[in-house]
Amino acid sequence: MATIFTKIINGSIPSTKLYEDDKCIVILDIAPCHKGHALVIPKKECETIIDCDDNILQHLIVIAKKIAKKQVKELKCDGYNIIINNKLASGQEVPHLHIHIVPRYNNDEYKMDFGHEEYQDNEIKDFGKRLNIC
Amino acid sequence: MATIFTKIINGSIPSTKLYEDDKCIVILDIAPCHKGHALVIPKKECETIIDCDDNILQHLIVIAKKIAKKQVKELKCDGYNIIINNKLASGQEVPHLHIHIVPRYNNDEYKMDFGHEEYQDNEIKDFGKRLNIC
Repeated sequence: MATIFTKIINGSIPSTKLYEDDKCIVILDIAPCHKGHALVIPKKECETIIDCDDNILQHLIVIAKKIAKKQVKELKCDGYNIIINNKLASGQEVPHLHIHIVPRYNNDEYKMDFGHEEYQDNEIKDFGKRLNIC
Repeated sequence: MATIFTKIINGSIPSTKLYEDDKCIVILDIAPCHKGHALVIPKKECETIIDCDDNILQHLIVIAKKIAKKQVKELKCDGYNIIINNKLASGQEVPHLHIHIVPRYNNDEYKMDFGHEEYQDNEIKDFGKRLNIC
């Protein structure tokens, strides 16, 4: 499904590009958590990492690493989050895979307001069996 | 720096393993956001993705993809977050790189409580130049 990212990739919607090659583009998020917040986007349309070819996914994460390195150097940020939201339930706003690289600063008070669940008795063992991929 | 993950990797602290190979282990987080929340951890100690060899990082993300696929199949989750916190400022609790794979459900009300900043005038262009990696 073509999204706004397809239009950004083909140039019909302008963006601030940080990088581009045959497999991906990197742009600045126009509504950043912190200024410098970047998005790595594969050119081939896919919704989630499960739908993304391994070789593309591997390329994207190495480009994300390069961007993080540049953020640390240029912005002097104290840390950074790499976030990939997959499907609407996870907070994915555009159904075209993208990796967020969010610069972070000490005491910026941003937090992941996620709940916590507790395993009862031997329940963790059951989950361990169900999710084993060996 | 050796952390609790080194002890989990060498077996001196028990864990619920989902996968293991020569480069990484995958375990269940004992304090999960949702049950089934998993961590992909490289065996070679490094703190952040910037410190991680590209080939290891590429391996980790493909393993994270396999785990996400298994979560969707087994847990019937509606989505999932892939999260890598880098440095204390970003929420990294253990200074040994790990990829969180968090199953998510429609209307679970978890959210990233991150702030937002706004670019003024042509400021985004300046950031675009500073962070360009071409």
